[in-house]
Amino acid sequence: MTPVSYADYPPELSPQEEQYLLSNLKDWSIAHGLAVRPAPSFVRPSQDPSGVLASTAPVTLFPSLFPRSCFEQGLSIQKAYNELYAAIARDEAWLKSIVEELVGVDDFVAKLWQTHLEVKKDGYVQDLSLGLFRSDYMVHQDPSPTHLSSGLKQVEFNTIASSFGGLSAQVSALHKFLLTIDAYPKSTSSIIKEAALEVSKSASSLAKGLAAAHKAYGTSRTGHPMCVLFVVQDPERNVFDQRHLEYALLENGVRSFRLPFGETLSHTQLDADRTLIYTPPNSSSTPYEITTIYFRAGYSPDDYPKGEDWTARLQLEKSRAIKCPSILTHLAGCKKVQQVLATPHSPHLKRFLPDDQVASRVLETFAPIYPLDDSEAGREARKLATNASSATKYVLKPQREGGGNNVYRKAIPPFLQKLPETHWPAYILMEMIEPPPLQNAILRNGEIQKGGVICELGVYGVCLWRDGGGDENRGKILENWEAGYLLRTKGDQSEEGGVAAGFGAVDSCCLVG
Amino acid sequence: MTPVSYADYPPELSPQEEQYLLSNLKDWSIAHGLAVRPAPSFVRPSQDPSGVLASTAPVTLFPSLFPRSCFEQGLSIQKAYNELYAAIARDEAWLKSIVEELVGVDDFVAKLWQTHLEVKKDGYVQDLSLGLFRSDYMVHQDPSPTHLSSGLKQVEFNTIASSFGGLSAQVSALHKFLLTIDAYPKSTSSIIKEAALEVSKSASSLAKGLAAAHKAYGTSRTGHPMCVLFVVQDPERNVFDQRHLEYALLENGVRSFRLPFGETLSHTQLDADRTLIYTPPNSSSTPYEITTIYFRAGYSPDDYPKGEDWTARLQLEKSRAIKCPSILTHLAGCKKVQQVLATPHSPHLKRFLPDDQVASRVLETFAPIYPLDDSEAGREARKLATNASSATKYVLKPQREGGGNNVYRKAIPPFLQKLPETHWPAYILMEMIEPPPLQNAILRNGEIQKGGVICELGVYGVCLWRDGGGDENRGKILENWEAGYLLRTKGDQSEEGGVAAGFGAVDSCCLVG
Repeated sequence: MTPVSYADYPPELSPQEEQYLLSNLKDWSIAHGLAVRPAPSFVRPSQDPSGVLASTAPVTLFPSLFPRSCFEQGLSIQKAYNELYAAIARDEAWLKSIVEELVGVDDFVAKLWQTHLEVKKDGYVQDLSLGLFRSDYMVHQDPSPTHLSSGLKQVEFNTIASSFGGLSAQVSALHKFLLTIDAYPKSTSSIIKEAALEVSKSASSLAKGLAAAHKAYGTSRTGHPMCVLFVVQDPERNVFDQRHLEYALLENGVRSFRLPFGETLSHTQLDADRTLIYTPPNSSSTPYEITTIYFRAGYSPDDYPKGEDWTARLQLEKSRAIKCPSILTHLAGCKKVQQVLATPHSPHLKRFLPDDQVASRVLETFAPIYPLDDSEAGREARKLATNASSATKYVLKPQREGGGNNVYRKAIPPFLQKLPETHWPAYILMEMIEPPPLQNAILRNGEIQKGGVICELGVYGVCLWRDGGGDENRGKILENWEAGYLLRTKGDQSEEGGVAAGFGAVDSCCLVG
Repeated sequence: MTPVSYADYPPELSPQEEQYLLSNLKDWSIAHGLAVRPAPSFVRPSQDPSGVLASTAPVTLFPSLFPRSCFEQGLSIQKAYNELYAAIARDEAWLKSIVEELVGVDDFVAKLWQTHLEVKKDGYVQDLSLGLFRSDYMVHQDPSPTHLSSGLKQVEFNTIASSFGGLSAQVSALHKFLLTIDAYPKSTSSIIKEAALEVSKSASSLAKGLAAAHKAYGTSRTGHPMCVLFVVQDPERNVFDQRHLEYALLENGVRSFRLPFGETLSHTQLDADRTLIYTPPNSSSTPYEITTIYFRAGYSPDDYPKGEDWTARLQLEKSRAIKCPSILTHLAGCKKVQQVLATPHSPHLKRFLPDDQVASRVLETFAPIYPLDDSEAGREARKLATNASSATKYVLKPQREGGGNNVYRKAIPPFLQKLPETHWPAYILMEMIEPPPLQNAILRNGEIQKGGVICELGVYGVCLWRDGGGDENRGKILENWEAGYLLRTKGDQSEEGGVAAGFGAVDSCCLVG
């Protein structure tokens, strides 16, 4: 037996080894809800009109190699990131300056801001905010020949609908199970070992965050029973990811309901003091008082096809329920915010993180990001982005959450050529992070894809803070913790093209070094 | 709100109530592995060649009403049944007399017996036997107008491959979950309540039985690592039921492997002292010593299409591994054994259960069963079975385990007419158990079927005993416990025809009275 080196990882499997690994993986995943509803291209809706079929979620066969120092860096910095984004979300004046640069070119940001202003007119009645954040990173290997170093660089920071916390906990348990039953060849035993496999506690830890907000809401004002409201898309293929949080929340003794965002106005109402009442369609005689709204929808313009969808968002924002997230917190997730913080020599970071040591640790994780406006930095960036040669080092991103909207490398100049220059400021230009070359195999819709992969580490954070209140309470952070991790892995040929837009497979970390 | 009475149970659901219940049921079941691989009629194998799709297992929407006294009777009597069948399995001479009546008419029984004799030639080298039993009952409501009584009557006793222990634990948890989230209308709150819902501990309890045998096997004779072998059918749609036992076994620190019965000779071998060695195809350099063989295949003639399948069974039986079950224990499950015990005025029960009180409690659960041979009882039974009027009170059963082979009521006379009389003794004639009329709704392959149902209570039992050994050890029972329950529910129009042969849905008990 020749031990496998990192360069040969993961090992080639014999047909018998692959069969053993796959049959165990496929059964374990369904037995433990590491599942998705099948894509319509896989199972036509007419074949399963009532929706009883499910499929193994796209997963990697092996845990991907990940530098231990980078992993620990990401986890240890999460509380600082929580603090940073809570501070940004509280700083309406500062956010206003950011948003003002976008309202002319980004309708969605404009509508969100308008909705916030509408609520502000009468004043907010809830001063607690909850963030279930996820900070996404890649390992960056500096390709310059003079100094070869690697570190974690932030891809983006999610302030709304951070997903996969439910499935991530399961996939790390899956890889541990496969190790336990010797599904990984002995030749890898010096790499894939108990001490190297990191279990993610994301499902239970995020649920605890929701439970903390639910509790902080206080007693019922209406006498109705209280609950958390999951505002969701419909249909939702990734429903089990969300359900695992619901079940973990119920273990904390907290009831929750799922409400399709488009049905908000049919089933919720504000009473005179803006308490949010949810009337379950199955039991109209038992209304609930909503303590916390957990948005797993509403983050994309596609979620607002009707005018009344904005009325719905307004109603939720107006309410006394704790929002996860509030509109200001949602807006804090704009790429423009990330860019303003990460543009070299930016003065903004220390505004929110006065502690220099903390700020510098956060700063280390920024990749350079430039505006495409007509500031000095913006004019410089426009040159880089329109030049066919220099553009290959960059990615162009809109403000939007969720994959599928980015423009990569040499596609940037022709894309900008077709876009009126007045719309360029809606985008930010980010230096590509150059991850180390890795290999893995992905099971997706029953097919195995093998080859080079790119891994993205997401670190979850829970933060509950007070926006307003008396002076002594203002800005007070009530809860702040790191809440587990996600490893997402996609084919390196994809750049949101080859494997699937924005999403390859859920994975877990096999720590090295 | 008008409370629902037992007669109106389960309640009619409004479309909104049904939607809420079903969406929660469908998601919870997949998230917790209450699942099956889809039937080929539902998903063509060519559509999912690698087998990643799964479906909610057929389940009832409501827990079925079940008399508390009957439930407790079934559970409390299980240890006596374990003792009874362990005693029968140890009494080769008595079993021989039973089998001799069958060998001429039942090839399968003949082959099993022959295999046992073959092993006996050189002597058995393992004197421990494990039974993971399931005793199946229905509630019998005596229809005679003079005395209306109800009690539990045994349908059959399974000594091999007793299934659904994995899913049963999950379905009872599902119904409890649905109660917790108010998926059952308030009108049922006096019936479906926490104290009435019985959670089944079958998965963990059966796994503990396998772990107990594994431990009792002792230390490795070969120096190889030790494991339990699950001998299975291939393909197996009900794989998650079995996997839940495997995972629970692993939690007990015991490794196990799945081996398709048809591949036994390719991957197992006996060494010189008949230790059974399993060589995992994925890792041929790491052979395992088998401590315990758990048969989830081999109970039906269909499992033996090739001559070498009998060689395989012989090899397993010959081995030093503890069999669950041994061939004698397998044969103890013949319907003929049940008939001989349950024929009115039978002297046999007290042979195996010398304690009169214990024997009489077991006797209470017998429905009258008659032979169809030319004994006096047999000749009487032949009259009942061939008469169109009296036949309507009976069911005709072959020796076989598993549903789909029974002949009911008025179908009996024409069936016997076509069968040569010499083959009649292969069948037993059993008085139909007349269960109380019940209603429920079943979700199966995405369709809901509502109407009258018949419920069958299965009580699991674990028993580990010593067949031989020194005089002081002979017949010693090492472990004996009741191991949870199963409720299986099918449409009352089916009698193994309407809903699906031998199987409707998994269910749980809502105890009443």
